[in-house]
Amino acid sequence: MASPSCLSPPEVPMELHVANRKKLLESFRDHLSQSSRPLHGFVLLQGGEEQTRYCTDHAELFRQESYFAYLFGVQEPGFCGAIDIATGESLLFAPRLPAEYAVWLGKIKPLSYFKEKYMVSSAYYTDEIARVLHDQYQGPGKPLLYLLHGLNTDSNNFSKPADFEGIDKFATDLNALHPILTECRVLKSGLELALIQFANDISSEAHIEVMRKTKVGMKEYQLESLFLHHTYMYGGCRHCSYTCICATGDNSAVLHYGHAAAPNDRTLEDGDMALLDMGAEYHFYGSDITCSFPVNGKFTHDQSLVYNAVLRAHNAVISSMRPGVNWVDMHKLAERTILESLKEGHLLVGDVDAMVNERLGAVFMPHGLGHLLGIDTHDPGGYLKGAERPKEPGLKSLRTSRDLLEGMVITVEPGCYFIEALLLPAMENTQTSKYFNHEQISRFRGFGGVRIESDVYVTSDGCLNMTKCPREIRDIEAVMAGAPWPIKPTSIPSVNGKA
Amino acid sequence: MASPSCLSPPEVPMELHVANRKKLLESFRDHLSQSSRPLHGFVLLQGGEEQTRYCTDHAELFRQESYFAYLFGVQEPGFCGAIDIATGESLLFAPRLPAEYAVWLGKIKPLSYFKEKYMVSSAYYTDEIARVLHDQYQGPGKPLLYLLHGLNTDSNNFSKPADFEGIDKFATDLNALHPILTECRVLKSGLELALIQFANDISSEAHIEVMRKTKVGMKEYQLESLFLHHTYMYGGCRHCSYTCICATGDNSAVLHYGHAAAPNDRTLEDGDMALLDMGAEYHFYGSDITCSFPVNGKFTHDQSLVYNAVLRAHNAVISSMRPGVNWVDMHKLAERTILESLKEGHLLVGDVDAMVNERLGAVFMPHGLGHLLGIDTHDPGGYLKGAERPKEPGLKSLRTSRDLLEGMVITVEPGCYFIEALLLPAMENTQTSKYFNHEQISRFRGFGGVRIESDVYVTSDGCLNMTKCPREIRDIEAVMAGAPWPIKPTSIPSVNGKA
Repeated sequence: MASPSCLSPPEVPMELHVANRKKLLESFRDHLSQSSRPLHGFVLLQGGEEQTRYCTDHAELFRQESYFAYLFGVQEPGFCGAIDIATGESLLFAPRLPAEYAVWLGKIKPLSYFKEKYMVSSAYYTDEIARVLHDQYQGPGKPLLYLLHGLNTDSNNFSKPADFEGIDKFATDLNALHPILTECRVLKSGLELALIQFANDISSEAHIEVMRKTKVGMKEYQLESLFLHHTYMYGGCRHCSYTCICATGDNSAVLHYGHAAAPNDRTLEDGDMALLDMGAEYHFYGSDITCSFPVNGKFTHDQSLVYNAVLRAHNAVISSMRPGVNWVDMHKLAERTILESLKEGHLLVGDVDAMVNERLGAVFMPHGLGHLLGIDTHDPGGYLKGAERPKEPGLKSLRTSRDLLEGMVITVEPGCYFIEALLLPAMENTQTSKYFNHEQISRFRGFGGVRIESDVYVTSDGCLNMTKCPREIRDIEAVMAGAPWPIKPTSIPSVNGKA
Repeated sequence: MASPSCLSPPEVPMELHVANRKKLLESFRDHLSQSSRPLHGFVLLQGGEEQTRYCTDHAELFRQESYFAYLFGVQEPGFCGAIDIATGESLLFAPRLPAEYAVWLGKIKPLSYFKEKYMVSSAYYTDEIARVLHDQYQGPGKPLLYLLHGLNTDSNNFSKPADFEGIDKFATDLNALHPILTECRVLKSGLELALIQFANDISSEAHIEVMRKTKVGMKEYQLESLFLHHTYMYGGCRHCSYTCICATGDNSAVLHYGHAAAPNDRTLEDGDMALLDMGAEYHFYGSDITCSFPVNGKFTHDQSLVYNAVLRAHNAVISSMRPGVNWVDMHKLAERTILESLKEGHLLVGDVDAMVNERLGAVFMPHGLGHLLGIDTHDPGGYLKGAERPKEPGLKSLRTSRDLLEGMVITVEPGCYFIEALLLPAMENTQTSKYFNHEQISRFRGFGGVRIESDVYVTSDGCLNMTKCPREIRDIEAVMAGAPWPIKPTSIPSVNGKA
């Protein structure tokens, strides 16, 4: 049997992280110069630790903390890393492992192994941090450590500053690093884009594999299993960007379906739409892709109506994206396009401008149009310090309100859902009731919803869709009936003049 | 194409957890009566909470805390549960979800849904715990809460007692519950055994599927992916009992290979042994199975020698297991059997009794023979309060030193490894050097190791192997060459007279 994949996991160049450190160092030195601060001290980050489950010794599969992963690319737990602001040198600190580690967990690697693998200037043990940084420091007074502390605007949690024995012998700054490092992560390099592209390629291929194998009578989780298997087996992706959302029928109106309380356990029925939001991660860099299709392989008239409304919005946004365009405007463009389509389809009546002003778009698309994507699925940097989050329905769910910049990767994921908790109040509201064709719309109770999500990166004069799934109805139907849909490799054009 | 599975996920009877609560209640009342304490107050447990990754909003896939899962079987996060010692009633407390949950995470289920689904006497919200327990309480004085607090002897962590607003209005006892509840978990009911049997059936089938598809040139993680896919796709197993250990070549001597720092990423080479330690979990109940085989499908003489040494130990132990047999003795039996075989194979020379006394067994098998298995892979209860852990090499790794009891499920997992960190010192040690045939044993550098692991439950007069993988060399070679190996369902005989 021919392999179901035409892809294979690419080599990961550690130069990617060398470049990330260089970029941070330059930004950080600029910042210090501008605020007339001396160019010495250290950026110090602490990587993640392996976690056990509750009181047991069940070890959760470790995934590196994202800021640390960005700068150092280290896959193992228990590390710290520093950048010497004066010299630009990078220092990696590895955990000192007990001798019996060799019996249970594998060969104990020498420091030279980590120095070479992660392309740092030098490597030490974590119990040496205080001594090494003191020795390395050439400036006056106590060495200054710039530690990571700042708000994640998606979770409202704060990142955890590095800590180690002897930190009291250092001066620390908790403010400067986070915004600068976050902004570095917002704009992707060519090497980063290549990994996000691979995550997109293997995930696109896996989505197609799932589409082809979807049959009435299967369980939703079987679609998840097919996806996970394809991306791991052929793409080497051990982690997903997020828990798979495999929603069919009415579940497709549950935006974050698939978690433990709604665990992809419904049986697929004839006539269902499927909404599959699944993306693999490769060497920390993720993808985030949604495909919607009828589980029996043929769109009905109503399914086409809703699907094409969303597809028009998806395409309208991608056609408009370029540096300088504001993301809130893109959200509104998507909303308006969907409302226009629903009006053409006789589900809505009246003036679309008035509907937009009444925030009717948020009844059908309560989530934001998209979010920055990178080492985190919801990559940080969506709201710059001081930026206010919109308060209106729909808009308040936006994870960024920024103007697009060259090098951003952002998801474009318009959706149209029939969610009773939103639709019924809006249909009863005296202010908005008049826009609904109540008779027509009643057909859509239990329809669920449609979402189409692609990962798009912003080029110097437009954008490029990194996701390669069939999107037109005729293509989806053809692929589900067995037509080929090869995933061709993309070569990433240079970004900001850099590879 | 015929389905690669003859299994399908069984219905999960919630009576299982009703019975678990009843068993605890009876044990606990006995304990209170024996210590002349009044039969009132509440057993109160807090379930697990969903976790996010570091500072981000990335939600980890939730898996229920095991003691709470045992008593209440609840798959959702954020619950608490109580048992009224006076009346035997069970009370479940669900989180009160905000209205917008319905948009993002799914329909908000009424309390009656949880009451019915989990077969409890009544259901409330977690913000009502203090009031409800006060109302329910009929005894004198402050109501007494028995909370879970005790040592996990595998992790050396303590379980976390329930906490809630208003707990200061109650008296609490942190000592009585943990040992009694732990002992309940040690002895499995028929309903529990049926789930462990299914986890074994689907995992055995998946191991066979992996054996058949293993080819030189594949990556170790592809074997993991095949296993995960089979158990999820055909068994509905979303969780594994533990991170898959897919070790080939020299890696098979790394006992806990497969973690993030050694992530199953080697390429399989002709002549390698594979050691695959993988087990699926079904409705919390796990399996833990290891198969060892040559990746090219044909055992060499040396591979047969080591494999058969381990298989003889595996079979000798299972033949000897019955209630009353001590587990340390079983470990020593396995060690001795392996040493005898290595002597017959001319790798060792001299008196086997003397080797046993010199703890030479621990050079080849540094881990314990096996551990209790259930809702945790390393199920608690291995050391009763006051029981001392052996101190000798090998024996000190035992996760239990108990006498076997009817209803225990325990892994039998002898192994024989060529671990340089242990072998070289033993071969150089003046005390033990004489036992090694240095010339012969040098052939085995880089061999790795062999482990054979089955899940065995102890019956009234013997034991039953729940694992159904081919174990004899001729069977493994036949299955890898394509011969059938059907997994036939097992009906669980009654245990302790109960279904």
